[in-house]
Amino acid sequence: MKSVAYQGEPGAFSEQAARSFFGSRHRLVPRPTFREVFSAVARGAVHAGIIPIENTLFGSVHQNYDLLLKNRLYIVGEINLRIRIHLMALPGVRRRDLRFVYSHPQALGQCEKFLHSLRGVTAVATEDTAGSARLIRDGGRRDAAALASRAAAQTYGLRILRRSVESDAKNFTRFLVLSRSKGKAGRRPKTSLVFAVRDVPGALFTAIGALALRDINLLKLESRPIVGRPWEYSFYVDVRGLESDQTMDQALNHLKELTTFVRVLGSYSSGKTVTG
Amino acid sequence: MKSVAYQGEPGAFSEQAARSFFGSRHRLVPRPTFREVFSAVARGAVHAGIIPIENTLFGSVHQNYDLLLKNRLYIVGEINLRIRIHLMALPGVRRRDLRFVYSHPQALGQCEKFLHSLRGVTAVATEDTAGSARLIRDGGRRDAAALASRAAAQTYGLRILRRSVESDAKNFTRFLVLSRSKGKAGRRPKTSLVFAVRDVPGALFTAIGALALRDINLLKLESRPIVGRPWEYSFYVDVRGLESDQTMDQALNHLKELTTFVRVLGSYSSGKTVTG
Repeated sequence: MKSVAYQGEPGAFSEQAARSFFGSRHRLVPRPTFREVFSAVARGAVHAGIIPIENTLFGSVHQNYDLLLKNRLYIVGEINLRIRIHLMALPGVRRRDLRFVYSHPQALGQCEKFLHSLRGVTAVATEDTAGSARLIRDGGRRDAAALASRAAAQTYGLRILRRSVESDAKNFTRFLVLSRSKGKAGRRPKTSLVFAVRDVPGALFTAIGALALRDINLLKLESRPIVGRPWEYSFYVDVRGLESDQTMDQALNHLKELTTFVRVLGSYSSGKTVTG
Repeated sequence: MKSVAYQGEPGAFSEQAARSFFGSRHRLVPRPTFREVFSAVARGAVHAGIIPIENTLFGSVHQNYDLLLKNRLYIVGEINLRIRIHLMALPGVRRRDLRFVYSHPQALGQCEKFLHSLRGVTAVATEDTAGSARLIRDGGRRDAAALASRAAAQTYGLRILRRSVESDAKNFTRFLVLSRSKGKAGRRPKTSLVFAVRDVPGALFTAIGALALRDINLLKLESRPIVGRPWEYSFYVDVRGLESDQTMDQALNHLKELTTFVRVLGSYSSGKTVTG
């Protein structure tokens, strides 16, 4: 049976994303940190890994962009998960019993309006959403609730007090699937790459031009600082098309002329959107 | 006496940045969150505010990019602070007494290699660096140290056990100075702006072209998701030059034709680099 590493604990959104992507034919392996997900894939302890890369309300998970560059892995797939966050507590606990709400800072941020409406309740940041649910179960806490997924409520025997308390309904997280070898892209292929430009005027414009002037559609651009070179940046871009397409091949060669380095992170099919 | 709001507690890096930028002629006002720094400036409770916007090791402070868009303030200046992080504890405490090290997650991340070398010590994330130093003083903790600035050690009577424990020496944070009214830019002016493009192929390339084809140098580009429009982004750019320059004026008008919105966040002098 093949195995897939994800960050967090059973009931985590990453676990749902992995289950939706792989179905039931893979064994899912929780890891405490993103770094350990990458290293488990890199050393072959698991067949694949899954990591969140961006959320439509909060933006990119920058640590994972940096880890993509540090590790020699390939992106072989993606999936978009509709994030629904529920308020949950031990059975019998009522809303007026609550003094604390535990969750990951991202989830607390996504539910800011709702938290504001709960008077006399303190929001407490934790390592992850599912872990908050476990913490309440393990501690037998009757003064606290967690903000987490429906799966977390089921896993830890909590009851949902209020459904979908996120501030904006258009809350999706995009996950990437990682492997030690290149994947096969099917429908609507995308390619992710990273490059750095010389510190000269117009350098980014010219680099993007290598793609745009060939009608290669840029879907996302993210900049990250280069450690050791203050105020210089590397750029991560997602474009429409396959690495092996002739036009893409020409664009990548052109990009090599214009940049200080280019690395293709992988070609893969555009992700489906699923509800958690 | 004029007043300047910063996030954190006395001894914070933001306080040092404010002191370096304004000298001793302003009263510095601590605020618990970035949001409260913005709102203090917006409602006129203080004359100016100062916020970190990017760090050369960790990248941008995305919450502050979002707050720049939500609030109608102007960037009127910037300063780059060399960040030196020290390990500090109560007088008489030795390295072998330590069981915990407290600091802000960014500072813990910047000192990852050093923390790794301390065996049997647990790193604990806190709200801010100076607050960690205060926590140790207030609690009379002889089993814990903080990672914070020299100013924090002085403010809270802690002794530095080990200097400059950051993983990379090229550790700078760029701070922006905010005001309700436009500033005057002097030497080496910069302009910061934010825009969003239509969801059509080549839109970002064309928009950047309005600047690049006029030889306006792009210094930084940052993308952030647009809430309520999944997988669409706004772009924050810093360029060389004044908003009132003729070429810039023409570029901004051109940019208005090519984008769904443009807002100039301010023109200001390039920041000096100071050591904290």
